[in-house]
Amino acid sequence: MAQDKRKQVSQITDMEADFAQWFTDVCLKAELIDYSSLKGVFIYRPYGYAIWENFQKILDGMFKATGHENVYLPMLIPESLLQKEKDHVEGFAPECAWVTYGGSEELEERYCIRPTSETLFCEHYAHIIQSHRDLPKLYNQWCSVLRWEKTSRPFLRHREFLWQEGHTMHATAQEAQEETERMFNIYADFCENYLAMPVVKGRKTDKEKFSGAEATYTVECMMHDKKALQAGTSHYFGDGFARAFNITFAGKDNQLHHPFQTSWGVSTRLIGGLIMTHGDNNGLVLPPKVAPIQVVIIPVAQHKPGVLEANRALLERLQKAGVRVKLDESDNTPGWKFAEYEMKGVPLRLELGPKDMEQNQCVLARRDSGEKTVVSLDGLEDTVAQMLEDIQKGLYQRAKANLEENTYPCATLEEVKERMAQRGGFAKTMWCGDLACEMRMKEEAGVSSRCIPLEQEHLGDVCACCGKPAKHMVYWGVAY
Amino acid sequence: MAQDKRKQVSQITDMEADFAQWFTDVCLKAELIDYSSLKGVFIYRPYGYAIWENFQKILDGMFKATGHENVYLPMLIPESLLQKEKDHVEGFAPECAWVTYGGSEELEERYCIRPTSETLFCEHYAHIIQSHRDLPKLYNQWCSVLRWEKTSRPFLRHREFLWQEGHTMHATAQEAQEETERMFNIYADFCENYLAMPVVKGRKTDKEKFSGAEATYTVECMMHDKKALQAGTSHYFGDGFARAFNITFAGKDNQLHHPFQTSWGVSTRLIGGLIMTHGDNNGLVLPPKVAPIQVVIIPVAQHKPGVLEANRALLERLQKAGVRVKLDESDNTPGWKFAEYEMKGVPLRLELGPKDMEQNQCVLARRDSGEKTVVSLDGLEDTVAQMLEDIQKGLYQRAKANLEENTYPCATLEEVKERMAQRGGFAKTMWCGDLACEMRMKEEAGVSSRCIPLEQEHLGDVCACCGKPAKHMVYWGVAY
Repeated sequence: MAQDKRKQVSQITDMEADFAQWFTDVCLKAELIDYSSLKGVFIYRPYGYAIWENFQKILDGMFKATGHENVYLPMLIPESLLQKEKDHVEGFAPECAWVTYGGSEELEERYCIRPTSETLFCEHYAHIIQSHRDLPKLYNQWCSVLRWEKTSRPFLRHREFLWQEGHTMHATAQEAQEETERMFNIYADFCENYLAMPVVKGRKTDKEKFSGAEATYTVECMMHDKKALQAGTSHYFGDGFARAFNITFAGKDNQLHHPFQTSWGVSTRLIGGLIMTHGDNNGLVLPPKVAPIQVVIIPVAQHKPGVLEANRALLERLQKAGVRVKLDESDNTPGWKFAEYEMKGVPLRLELGPKDMEQNQCVLARRDSGEKTVVSLDGLEDTVAQMLEDIQKGLYQRAKANLEENTYPCATLEEVKERMAQRGGFAKTMWCGDLACEMRMKEEAGVSSRCIPLEQEHLGDVCACCGKPAKHMVYWGVAY
Repeated sequence: MAQDKRKQVSQITDMEADFAQWFTDVCLKAELIDYSSLKGVFIYRPYGYAIWENFQKILDGMFKATGHENVYLPMLIPESLLQKEKDHVEGFAPECAWVTYGGSEELEERYCIRPTSETLFCEHYAHIIQSHRDLPKLYNQWCSVLRWEKTSRPFLRHREFLWQEGHTMHATAQEAQEETERMFNIYADFCENYLAMPVVKGRKTDKEKFSGAEATYTVECMMHDKKALQAGTSHYFGDGFARAFNITFAGKDNQLHHPFQTSWGVSTRLIGGLIMTHGDNNGLVLPPKVAPIQVVIIPVAQHKPGVLEANRALLERLQKAGVRVKLDESDNTPGWKFAEYEMKGVPLRLELGPKDMEQNQCVLARRDSGEKTVVSLDGLEDTVAQMLEDIQKGLYQRAKANLEENTYPCATLEEVKERMAQRGGFAKTMWCGDLACEMRMKEEAGVSSRCIPLEQEHLGDVCACCGKPAKHMVYWGVAY
């Protein structure tokens, strides 16, 4: 029975015909995720969770190397605490899930399940920060958060999702701004050098920034269907929350001051980004640096004498070389195995059968290009390492080409409207900075501002919408 | 200001005068934990969380080495799902926190925040298990759970706490029983060989077993105050949940069968156990294998030329040798630093000043014994490694002696009552197996059954309570 189910593993929707359905198919057939009985809440299956564990390991290393410490704060926020910062509560209260009973007793105050933890961190910081000697505080938390949204899609929009949230406090505005930038650069580094997802780095417009933040920085990626994905954000809060929560410290001048704050986060929606950046009609394609299995070994004619033993010897060799490698000895056919690990996006497949053994060679098949190469077993470790590196680079270059080919300047709203309808992607225009023009761009061209890129270009002197003097160059697109 | 606060770091309650207050003092002053504004919910501070991260790393490695995979399931359980297994809901419903509103809308069905996830795993397993080829399923989850209890203590009883919960499904009862035992042995190994906490391995009586389980295995530890701590449990469920949740698989015989189930967990209460096993009147004492900082380097006369450089050179040497080492270059006095890292239980302190430098030596001070040794800087890496090993062993032996000296046989309930009042610890008696005698032991001697040890001793032929023929030898004690 299970065997029969698995034979259908490669039957997924064509990505050019229906990208959304293709995406859902990949999530389910690669066994990344499953539906739960709660609308909008998903189960992270072992293979999907293993990808997240790889993200965690890399990011956590980067956070610790820059002096951050992990903590764990409560999952429940008293309603009165959430209400302390006005903009923040307006942004989040509509999508909070509320706990009203503990056991059989109705609670005197409602608690929401954290949609994000700024308020909890502020309350804790008010308790533990007294002196300039207590600063900076560089905390991070790995946890799940809950937002009671109306619509959902695997990885991209869950009511409950896994993420990390950094929350830091600093003695000066400058230090906090540097921290905001540091973490935003770490996200860009992670996306580009591990996920092979090229990014556009920029600042959000006031309309798009985080509830309660003074500034939000973002890394924006382009998916295969040319839509945008906000991959990670880093916020600078000034001392707004610190004032609202009455957090003070005695400075070197012996006066009381409010500290300056940041927060920053990435979530499992990055896995959605990975799928939509690199996947193809055979399923998932994973960059080697984050793939749970980097090489799968598939024995050919495994019933013949000596074949399994020779395959196991290669398994051991590659394990010793630090490769994440799996040998599939199951009694499924090689054809079934090929399809299975293609669906799961394993970067490299190694085939070894009796004929290869005679000639001291094996076959390596690349998931990204499908290319098959016969290689010598001598120095196999180096060959594999080199090929994994080539795949990692190749995926990045392909995604980079997609981003560059589909980012184009436009002089007017009309041009944005026309070209966006034709080809999607990112339109870049000059902008006066007014909300009205941003709203008009949304209403008439169907795009939102992705960011004000840090690397500004001068495309002209006037706003593409209203013709008034321009302040910034902005990227526009349709976002997930 | 902060400086002044810190000077009081060593002012904790005497552990012999008031063990409970000593424990709370250590939790707060070693900066392991903080109170939140929610009653019974605590904040895991960086130092406390770092201990948990070390536990996670070791246990996760053990779980994966035995074929387990991590997953993440929802934090919310629909009320109807929780009610599917009768014993289970009776055990947990009274301490559930209930979500009744999503945003501004009242929900049609209430959801509880998971107090444990058997029901969620069963629902998922019903979805993904069809064939004997899908078994075994060996899943584990790292998460927080919530139990709305009336009383609370740091680490020992939180309304919200961090834990891992393994949930596995097997084709046969025997395989599931073997899994229950395997995980229970992993917990015993972890407690003894990493936490330096000797354990008594046994089975819970029917009264004390987990709601819905057929059998619960436990590792029981003895704290410094001679009370018991249940350190980890492993449950065998038979096919009870599988029947309640209609989980079936097609066997090799092409018939439908119900799979057999286990679950097992340890939580951050183990940190409480660690504190209460090894701590002393100077604060925390951590076994080197789980200490976030294994060696702290404290420069003596650090303002003198060359001292800081020489200390930094040692930092680098020990880091290269794989030691978790910290150099405290702050401008606090050495005396303050000594007290601070003693409070935090750092196993080994290294002091290096100008005189030591002249003689190519340094001072090593053991946290467990207070013993100071002058050692050569030649081969320092080996000396440190050896001393850390000695500390690890010494802590275990001291705890083992405490356990052995305070475990004693009793022939009658009267004897249990008398000796328990005098000295606490574990009383071991023969028992007929009847609930009535177990209840009487609780009412009259104030002790609960800790376990029916796997290593049974023959202490006599009759039950210590009723004089009827005995079935088992049981350990009794007062438990956290």
